[in-house]
Amino acid sequence: MKIEYVPIGYVRSPFREPSGVPIQTRAGNDIEGTVEILEEYAAGLSDLEGFSHIIMLTHMHMCEGYRLKVTPFLDDVKRGVFSTRAPCRPNPIGFHICRLDGVEGSILHIRDLDMIDRTPVLDIKPYIPQGYEREDVRIGWLEGKLDEFLSTYADDRFSRSGSR
Amino acid sequence: MKIEYVPIGYVRSPFREPSGVPIQTRAGNDIEGTVEILEEYAAGLSDLEGFSHIIMLTHMHMCEGYRLKVTPFLDDVKRGVFSTRAPCRPNPIGFHICRLDGVEGSILHIRDLDMIDRTPVLDIKPYIPQGYEREDVRIGWLEGKLDEFLSTYADDRFSRSGSR
Repeated sequence: MKIEYVPIGYVRSPFREPSGVPIQTRAGNDIEGTVEILEEYAAGLSDLEGFSHIIMLTHMHMCEGYRLKVTPFLDDVKRGVFSTRAPCRPNPIGFHICRLDGVEGSILHIRDLDMIDRTPVLDIKPYIPQGYEREDVRIGWLEGKLDEFLSTYADDRFSRSGSR
Repeated sequence: MKIEYVPIGYVRSPFREPSGVPIQTRAGNDIEGTVEILEEYAAGLSDLEGFSHIIMLTHMHMCEGYRLKVTPFLDDVKRGVFSTRAPCRPNPIGFHICRLDGVEGSILHIRDLDMIDRTPVLDIKPYIPQGYEREDVRIGWLEGKLDEFLSTYADDRFSRSGSR
């Protein structure tokens, strides 16, 4: 079974390559960019401006292939890829929460970027934090590494030339 | 440009059709099910069991086509689809936060289900709540409707026979 999606638009970002990108959106605080939504989807943006933040799902297009066990940025042990945020996964879908500064026609002005320039956007959803709260959360191998998780920038291990 | 993904597994859930499903994961509290990961991806599950909750991205396979303006469950005004959680979207990717009760080989035992039986799973990521907190959040047209958002079940408007 194959599932086919199409880009609804593209990210414009100051990051040209994987190395140096924040490893998750919160570390990308204040980095500005835009999302250019294709004209045929622009009507779907109405009412979005009332939301201060959006969820973006992207296709992490720089990934070529994947490994099921990876050494994540914050560890020196190989972990199952689904217990990590490593970008190169069987289906390399990126999950991002960005600040929405404004909507101008089919252009979204966003902040808190952790995407590479020209990343295809698959979906945009409103960010509704009350829906994401959970109790009694355990975070596995990331326990004790949270400060780093929230502030670390990527090296080249998941880029085309990365070797791990 | 076409983007091709493959299911890494399938949800087994008590919900056989869209009508009656919680409109987002938190309303699905305590509903139990499993995710059957395909053998070829099972090695990627290691270390996942340390996490109490997981993010699942799914392909909402019951959607046929989409509209850019929809009347969401909690409103009587048409809204841009990207400002709603309506399942039928240009790329119908579902976002879910589920409790992980355990991992048995390639089977995940999960709770807090809002997916239909046999929904294809695209990706699993660890749930790390500290990465999703944001300040000064505004939630647009959902303001004042949060209690309903967290507890509402779907009618048939987005199912094959739904008319709106």
